[in-house]
Amino acid sequence: MTDPVFFTKIESLSLGHLAELVDAQLPDNADGSMLIDTVAPINAAASGQITFLDNPKYVADLEKTEASAVLCAKRYVDKVPDGVVALEVKNPYLAFSQISAAFYPEALKPLAYFDSQGGISQAAHIHPSAKIEAGVCVEPGASVGALAEIGSGTTVGVNAVIGQGVRVGRDCHIGANCVLQHTLVGDRVILHPGVCSGQDGFGFSMSATGHQKVPQIGRVIIQDNVEIGANSTIDRGANRDTIIGEGTKIDNQVQIGHNVEVGRHCVLVSQVGLSGSSTLQDFVAIGGQSGVAGHITVGMGAQIAAVSVVKDDVPAGGRYGGVPAKPVKQWFREMSALKKLAEKKS
Amino acid sequence: MTDPVFFTKIESLSLGHLAELVDAQLPDNADGSMLIDTVAPINAAASGQITFLDNPKYVADLEKTEASAVLCAKRYVDKVPDGVVALEVKNPYLAFSQISAAFYPEALKPLAYFDSQGGISQAAHIHPSAKIEAGVCVEPGASVGALAEIGSGTTVGVNAVIGQGVRVGRDCHIGANCVLQHTLVGDRVILHPGVCSGQDGFGFSMSATGHQKVPQIGRVIIQDNVEIGANSTIDRGANRDTIIGEGTKIDNQVQIGHNVEVGRHCVLVSQVGLSGSSTLQDFVAIGGQSGVAGHITVGMGAQIAAVSVVKDDVPAGGRYGGVPAKPVKQWFREMSALKKLAEKKS
Amino acid sequence: MTDPVFFTKIESLSLGHLAELVDAQLPDNADGSMLIDTVAPINAAASGQITFLDNPKYVADLEKTEASAVLCAKRYVDKVPDGVVALEVKNPYLAFSQISAAFYPEALKPLAYFDSQGGISQAAHIHPSAKIEAGVCVEPGASVGALAEIGSGTTVGVNAVIGQGVRVGRDCHIGANCVLQHTLVGDRVILHPGVCSGQDGFGFSMSATGHQKVPQIGRVIIQDNVEIGANSTIDRGANRDTIIGEGTKIDNQVQIGHNVEVGRHCVLVSQVGLSGSSTLQDFVAIGGQSGVAGHITVGMGAQIAAVSVVKDDVPAGGRYGGVPAKPVKQWFREMSALKKLAEKKS
Repeated sequence: MTDPVFFTKIESLSLGHLAELVDAQLPDNADGSMLIDTVAPINAAASGQITFLDNPKYVADLEKTEASAVLCAKRYVDKVPDGVVALEVKNPYLAFSQISAAFYPEALKPLAYFDSQGGISQAAHIHPSAKIEAGVCVEPGASVGALAEIGSGTTVGVNAVIGQGVRVGRDCHIGANCVLQHTLVGDRVILHPGVCSGQDGFGFSMSATGHQKVPQIGRVIIQDNVEIGANSTIDRGANRDTIIGEGTKIDNQVQIGHNVEVGRHCVLVSQVGLSGSSTLQDFVAIGGQSGVAGHITVGMGAQIAAVSVVKDDVPAGGRYGGVPAKPVKQWFREMSALKKLAEKKS
Repeated sequence: MTDPVFFTKIESLSLGHLAELVDAQLPDNADGSMLIDTVAPINAAASGQITFLDNPKYVADLEKTEASAVLCAKRYVDKVPDGVVALEVKNPYLAFSQISAAFYPEALKPLAYFDSQGGISQAAHIHPSAKIEAGVCVEPGASVGALAEIGSGTTVGVNAVIGQGVRVGRDCHIGANCVLQHTLVGDRVILHPGVCSGQDGFGFSMSATGHQKVPQIGRVIIQDNVEIGANSTIDRGANRDTIIGEGTKIDNQVQIGHNVEVGRHCVLVSQVGLSGSSTLQDFVAIGGQSGVAGHITVGMGAQIAAVSVVKDDVPAGGRYGGVPAKPVKQWFREMSALKKLAEKKS
Repeated sequence: MTDPVFFTKIESLSLGHLAELVDAQLPDNADGSMLIDTVAPINAAASGQITFLDNPKYVADLEKTEASAVLCAKRYVDKVPDGVVALEVKNPYLAFSQISAAFYPEALKPLAYFDSQGGISQAAHIHPSAKIEAGVCVEPGASVGALAEIGSGTTVGVNAVIGQGVRVGRDCHIGANCVLQHTLVGDRVILHPGVCSGQDGFGFSMSATGHQKVPQIGRVIIQDNVEIGANSTIDRGANRDTIIGEGTKIDNQVQIGHNVEVGRHCVLVSQVGLSGSSTLQDFVAIGGQSGVAGHITVGMGAQIAAVSVVKDDVPAGGRYGGVPAKPVKQWFREMSALKKLAEKKS
């Protein structure tokens, strides 16, 4: 399925090696020296390939898979067809990701766009006052402005814009066409193409004669190990900092307003919008297209369903959904009550 | 209304020629040699111009139009004012588009951004291993990476980024500041500015200690005659391909997750989000700001209303709407029941 | 809180000067010669700093603020702690913005990205037929196409694309990586990074055999003093112009379809979508993630709540919300009736 132009694959790995990698026990009748060529999805895997079952929706595919081996939880081992090796693991998706990484080590971090030679392109625009450590790659058309700093091991993709005074840590990937201003970036951060960070927050003192721009003098702080999806936007703080906490993963087209504080290890699915001065504590997860109102707090570990609107504080560990978001049970009761009401009337 | 700086217009065309073009019969009392200068909207058209009526909302404008000719369906012919030629056609919008194309042939494909000279700019960045056919235009600041291929007749706009190994077919327009990675593009594809295609899908194995990145080793396949709007994002597949089927039209700021398969001739209006591993069969239409959950299928020819959320499979030909999306009739019943309930209580 | 790398701050200003600036009376016991160093948010302000109270949610912070002075409305003066100077003003947020501007005059308009030297970079791509007034800054990698015009005092950011024939007025800021085509821009306009303006509207004559592209021959007109957020998209008109009225402020990731007319001094919060041929009259405000259907009119001064969907005309001054949007009171009644219904059933 995967085009060899795009990633270099390890040629093959033994089943025994893979089992060890994911801490699975090789079944007695399995041949640990069997060579596995690659990973594949369960409904497309062929002989010589390894696959996984995670979503119960695909159990029917498990029963007819042509893979040579399957990673799955204990309760599905019996459904693995004869002749296919079942590797029982606690977390099949994690195990699959570890094996994928073993076959495609390059895929854990985006490739450079122009070529894989590294170094600073003659066609990049580097300000003489910028400080660039050894081992940085700056691709053609990318710019690094006055007083900006880039740490070693970082790639600045084609046409990315590192604004004046911006500091980017080590081993980061700044995607093509990203624009960073007033932003400090930690280590091992991945920004996919088109991310805009540090532009003016949306602050106006409104009146019946027009709207007066409020200076936005804060910054954006992106901590270590953050990943941010394509075309997402993060405004800098009005009079404090907008912060994206360590290890947080943000999908495409997410909008984060000024002064927002996102905790550590949060997950924001695509097209989410966080209004100004909202706070997410650590390990918050928010489904796609949801919105969070300004000046509210979502507590540690809370989970918000997709397409919901959070208008009030959510307690730690809360499971909320709906418009406005409420505890999931209450939300389901309301949807069901409305459905019954409509049926009665018709 | 249209600024002559932007498009070159054909000077004028005879009414008879236009009627023939759209397969309409010239009324007996009309003068086929009358010259028409241009097209115009119904409430702004002046003498010497041709307009159309499609949306019944504008019938009042029809009755006082100052156009010289009007394209309309049979049932509106009687409402065309005296002295205005009515050209009866089955599909007035299609006819108008054909006549617009006759006046503005350049407008069927985006213009180059820098100038109309074509060729490969000295200020473009072309990797020596890239293969570029004759008759390709690469504008200033655009880059074509290692081993990438571009077919003849294609324009790569200013600062667009064609990543390593990407292949673009013939007669395409790749808009300014687009970023393509891990993507194969067919023929006659139009990408508007800022489209990002082929970046990592949003795949993490989540846990209470942090989130482990899952390698995304698939590709994006964009088939022939697809058009994609500004700042839309399409992630590459996790372990298979993300596919956009032939002739599909996608508006601005649409988000398409990894492994999604969009069929042929689908229509996705702006700000739609398709979650990972969802499938749209052919001729599906989805209104603006709607979302489709992961791992579900929307059947052939189904239509989803704007601002809806599809959480379960939709049968072929279904007309669905609401959150979650249900058959449109049921959705309307629920909204109406709720309205009545609230009126009763107040 | 603010990093001195990013903005140059005025060293300090006297309390008396600041009071005068915002038209506040210095309390009898206050020392007008006291020096204030900077502005700060109410819960972080230290001695020597000035803050403000606007949102009543932060009254508790007021009572323990360590700022030297506070801007607040009359009704909060009594809650200002002893030793902190209360400056009573009608509109504390406006006053704070005026004082912020006094300390950080640079922050009223985005900085250039590469450096602050101005002028036309040798690494910019300027077409010989473009007309550029004196005093324009074009940064590295930016392009100005054939016959385009740029007025004095305007900055064209790194890698921004000014397409053929586009005209930009004076004292504008065109953000990095913006792409303008078929667009006329007034004076003192701010476009944040990644804005795409003037690409083809989404116009197709659809049919069961495929979709026929309709030429889009209008323009985009962006009037004076407009500000548009990062990665927003504005399509040009189909056969008339898309217009953004004077003084209108648009947040990030807003989508504006073809033929839309936005009045003067409107406010569109992030991720709003305006469908084709919709009209907003002057001073309309629309909350985040809301949508407006095509061919409808939102009357002067109307306010639409966040995450609403406007499907029908809204009268001038209307306060609407919900899906579909209805008068706010009715919307609240419906939500409350549904909540009660669900409680009863459970």
